[in-house]
Amino acid sequence: MTTIAYLGPAGTYSEMAALQYLQLNYPDLTQDIPSLRPYPTIPQAINAAERGLVDIAIVPVENSIQGSVTMTLDSLWQSESLQIQQAIVIPIAHALITHAENLEDIKTVYSHPQGLAQCQQWLDRYLPTVQQIATDSTADGVHSAAKDITVAAIASERAAKLYNVPILEFPINDQPDNCTRFLVLGRTAPTTKGTHSSLAFSLSRNMPGALVKPLLVFADRQINLSRIESRPTKRSLGEYIFFIDIDAPVEDPNFSDALQELRAVTENLKILGSYAIWLDSD
Amino acid sequence: MTTIAYLGPAGTYSEMAALQYLQLNYPDLTQDIPSLRPYPTIPQAINAAERGLVDIAIVPVENSIQGSVTMTLDSLWQSESLQIQQAIVIPIAHALITHAENLEDIKTVYSHPQGLAQCQQWLDRYLPTVQQIATDSTADGVHSAAKDITVAAIASERAAKLYNVPILEFPINDQPDNCTRFLVLGRTAPTTKGTHSSLAFSLSRNMPGALVKPLLVFADRQINLSRIESRPTKRSLGEYIFFIDIDAPVEDPNFSDALQELRAVTENLKILGSYAIWLDSD
Repeated sequence: MTTIAYLGPAGTYSEMAALQYLQLNYPDLTQDIPSLRPYPTIPQAINAAERGLVDIAIVPVENSIQGSVTMTLDSLWQSESLQIQQAIVIPIAHALITHAENLEDIKTVYSHPQGLAQCQQWLDRYLPTVQQIATDSTADGVHSAAKDITVAAIASERAAKLYNVPILEFPINDQPDNCTRFLVLGRTAPTTKGTHSSLAFSLSRNMPGALVKPLLVFADRQINLSRIESRPTKRSLGEYIFFIDIDAPVEDPNFSDALQELRAVTENLKILGSYAIWLDSD
Repeated sequence: MTTIAYLGPAGTYSEMAALQYLQLNYPDLTQDIPSLRPYPTIPQAINAAERGLVDIAIVPVENSIQGSVTMTLDSLWQSESLQIQQAIVIPIAHALITHAENLEDIKTVYSHPQGLAQCQQWLDRYLPTVQQIATDSTADGVHSAAKDITVAAIASERAAKLYNVPILEFPINDQPDNCTRFLVLGRTAPTTKGTHSSLAFSLSRNMPGALVKPLLVFADRQINLSRIESRPTKRSLGEYIFFIDIDAPVEDPNFSDALQELRAVTENLKILGSYAIWLDSD
């Protein structure tokens, strides 16, 4: 049976992305539906797929408000074998989940750092004096809210239902158009035709002024970069790994040409995958 | 008297950067030395400089391990009047600060999210079961450690001395070469000659495939980008603001030419400043 790792426990937005993945890829319920396995952190979910303990891992990579999920980019760069098989974009609507009957009774708020950050203005306005505690996942906070009437969690409506804790306020995210892109990572190439590609490269210490060359490879061919993100190499300040998203599959002849040339002007080049993006049409 | 906002309270790495700024710019102690004013958050320190409540703000912008301080980039983009006057790079060495005499007696660890992230491997190994609580600054955690023997804080040696709490372990950061770049922000242009420049731009919704054009402006002139970072516009997923660092001052004729052309291919272009970078030579 196929197994899927996600950032757990049940009730996280990663689980919602995993359920969406099942609907998209296993529409026929007579098929052998994969089993979902929660992992406590993003690196652990990615490592499980890397080491073959599960078939795929579904992890968040980018939020429309908070930007990149840096842990995912860093783990993806370190991975030897994983490829992006699909991207899934999920709308994010946060609820304030608590047994407290009034905002005044809440002393602490628990959520994933991204959940806290995405509701910062709401918290500053309505709960300015409560202590904010970071948890490994949004659903972990709901566990705490279930046990203590002075605790509130920021998580999905689904998490409130799963753990049977009431919703006091909804939605509380600062920006209504809040969504997160998740990546489906596996050790095999995707079976469906890709429309987008992701790659990452580092530049060596001995390549001063080197970023212009890789960019020129794309610019010369009028290949559009839909996204460019840098992460520190962790060797020294000013040395980066660049993550690039391109609106074309790797098989595109123009793009394969570019990749050949790119190898010559980068230190280490990784093709992270060619894949399709699924967007919620709601 | 000149006044300087920093991410306080006293004992933060931002205060160390502010003290370094004083040594660099006010070496003569008979001068009128500026007064340092702590602010509880990065946006509040930046807003104080923007609104003229202080003359300058000194805030972290990038760590060699954790990458960008996204709050600083987002605030800088929203600012109408601030310019980067100087950059200061400070080495970061974290201490575990607590009245507890053994690791076993520690139940919670407090630090700024960046402090927790920079010691994550150490914490996973030596304090795997303690609760990690995010604070607005590293020094805020030391306040909590001063009052409760079961609490430890991750902060600088200076913070331990200032608040008179013992150091149990030092250093505990996962990477020995850990440093943070701070920006000095003010409403006037810097008086010293710049060597580096920073700018930021957005692309309009009606500019599909538009990132290639701004990049081509630099590539065509062999102007090297030392850093490129994207932040979400917060309008919709896939729309970014790009932050670019360049190893040349704005006055460089090649660069001024590029800026003219850049205005035509971007939606909104901000010159964030031309400035010198100071690096600790230790």
